Amino acid sequence: MNAEASLGSIGETAALARIFPRLPGSAFALVGPGDDAAVLTAPDARFVVTTDMMIHGPDFRLAWSSAHDLGWKAAASNLADVAAMGAVPTGLVVALAAPSGTSVAFLEEFADGLRDGCAAMAPGCGVVGGDLSVSATLTIAVTAFGDLEGRDPVLRSGARVGDVVAVSGVLGAAAAGIRLLFSDAVSEGRPDASLASALRASRPEITAQLAPTPPIADGRLAALEGATAMIDLSDGLVLDARRLAQASGVGIDLDAARVGPGDALTGGEDHSLLATFPAGARLPGGFRAVGTVIVDTGVFVDGLPFEARGGWDPYEGWDGGDG
Amino acid sequence: MNAEASLGSIGETAALARIFPRLPGSAFALVGPGDDAAVLTAPDARFVVTTDMMIHGPDFRLAWSSAHDLGWKAAASNLADVAAMGAVPTGLVVALAAPSGTSVAFLEEFADGLRDGCAAMAPGCGVVGGDLSVSATLTIAVTAFGDLEGRDPVLRSGARVGDVVAVSGVLGAAAAGIRLLFSDAVSEGRPDASLASALRASRPEITAQLAPTPPIADGRLAALEGATAMIDLSDGLVLDARRLAQASGVGIDLDAARVGPGDALTGGEDHSLLATFPAGARLPGGFRAVGTVIVDTGVFVDGLPFEARGGWDPYEGWDGGDG
Repeated sequence: MNAEASLGSIGETAALARIFPRLPGSAFALVGPGDDAAVLTAPDARFVVTTDMMIHGPDFRLAWSSAHDLGWKAAASNLADVAAMGAVPTGLVVALAAPSGTSVAFLEEFADGLRDGCAAMAPGCGVVGGDLSVSATLTIAVTAFGDLEGRDPVLRSGARVGDVVAVSGVLGAAAAGIRLLFSDAVSEGRPDASLASALRASRPEITAQLAPTPPIADGRLAALEGATAMIDLSDGLVLDARRLAQASGVGIDLDAARVGPGDALTGGEDHSLLATFPAGARLPGGFRAVGTVIVDTGVFVDGLPFEARGGWDPYEGWDGGDG
Repeated sequence: MNAEASLGSIGETAALARIFPRLPGSAFALVGPGDDAAVLTAPDARFVVTTDMMIHGPDFRLAWSSAHDLGWKAAASNLADVAAMGAVPTGLVVALAAPSGTSVAFLEEFADGLRDGCAAMAPGCGVVGGDLSVSATLTIAVTAFGDLEGRDPVLRSGARVGDVVAVSGVLGAAAAGIRLLFSDAVSEGRPDASLASALRASRPEITAQLAPTPPIADGRLAALEGATAMIDLSDGLVLDARRLAQASGVGIDLDAARVGPGDALTGGEDHSLLATFPAGARLPGGFRAVGTVIVDTGVFVDGLPFEARGGWDPYEGWDGGDG
């Protein structure tokens, strides 16, 4: 098989035959890819499900993200939503649409990113099905599943006044990474692969943006320790804390010193976990306290209302030309 | 709210707020849309899952397909894959990426198509989650779930020599519809909405192509009657029969007179169901016999090998300009 083969030149069936063997299997699959549908176990007769799309342009630049990064990040962002329910990820289905000239090697590297991301963040979780199409716009749609192991799901709506507000995972690193890329990895107005690569070697924020590693296992640990509410930090601490506060009918007061400097308050795309725990609870895994649930509405920092919207909105985002 | 509002002008959150109330609920949802993930029941501790993408260009033309058609067809094509396992559809997650100028009215009509399609084909099934993004290419990715009600899944691999080969649903209508559209609903080389609309009023093949109604409930009935193998006819009778025959290690001999004329042998996109039943079994629902499982390899018609590939390949398909 020609290493230069493209999706368009060999067709969907042949491309899938090359990708399939590289995809991670799921320990929960009773019937894997290859039939009309897959069959997964749902040990406690329920399953958690979430879906998220990544679009070339608003969501990533091919000059900056490798195919491996894209597979990894597509896994990470969906696994984080499963973790935020207090569930253990069990499987993914992956739909990918790519320009017909896309090399099969690119698709293989994407599959490797899914495999390595699952292995690093959610061992036992794998790809149980998918779809491959041709499109002018490279598009990745992942749906992820999880098992609650008999527990109630941890919703956004359960925070109670007096609870400790805690975070597991980095805050602001992904936002610092995208800012760095726009300031230092653009050449003649376009994303530049060489500059990004050089930058990445010395700046961990770049990898935090392009291939984040959220603390997936901490979702389950939070549920086991009695977390009252939880949310994935996809749009930034303040914006997502506001969502959790609103769903719970409470206010959240963040401690600026504990949150940290820079983009920690408002930077998006870290996919870290924000959870609330009863006062005095042991904080599990990587969780550390960053604030308190209060009788009020909205988000406060050191007792003062934080009115700035904060966070990441794909509709107000970047469109830095081709790349 | 302005009727002319677009996805880009009001943003993802406001657009979702208008779409949500129109989406069909699922009788199987314990936690519906609005949290990080949904929670569905899986009564027998397993669930069936399949995913399928529809891309503007290769998969549909906006001059011919209404938003309602797209919602309906996205549901239909995924529900058919669930049905082909012998399962009852329980839920969908829907990711939609659209150009920023797409009107919110279009998105609402798309949601209505999902609602009406679920109500017509799979009552009790509904949308439990989704994602909305901006993309230059209108893209729809649906993942569908089903419940096996304690039965084994009906795989492609179970056909046995001597079984009856049967079909439920139309054969060739969707292919006849797309051919009609290309011959009679193109103006100056482009798909034409007025011509398509006039044609649709008198030719049911057009609706069979743009908003098919596969016999979803017959998947469950086939399983209850002991179907040994089953597949959704997405790529045409011959091509999908070949897949089933190959997976089962048998040959399939089709009876031309029973299959019918025109596109019935090779036309794709009907999403009808092809199943094999033990000889003498009562054929349930809309199933009628079209052939026999034989000791051989591949597909035969009236005893003669059918070598033509047949069927629908998106990589060899049409690209008829904008529309």
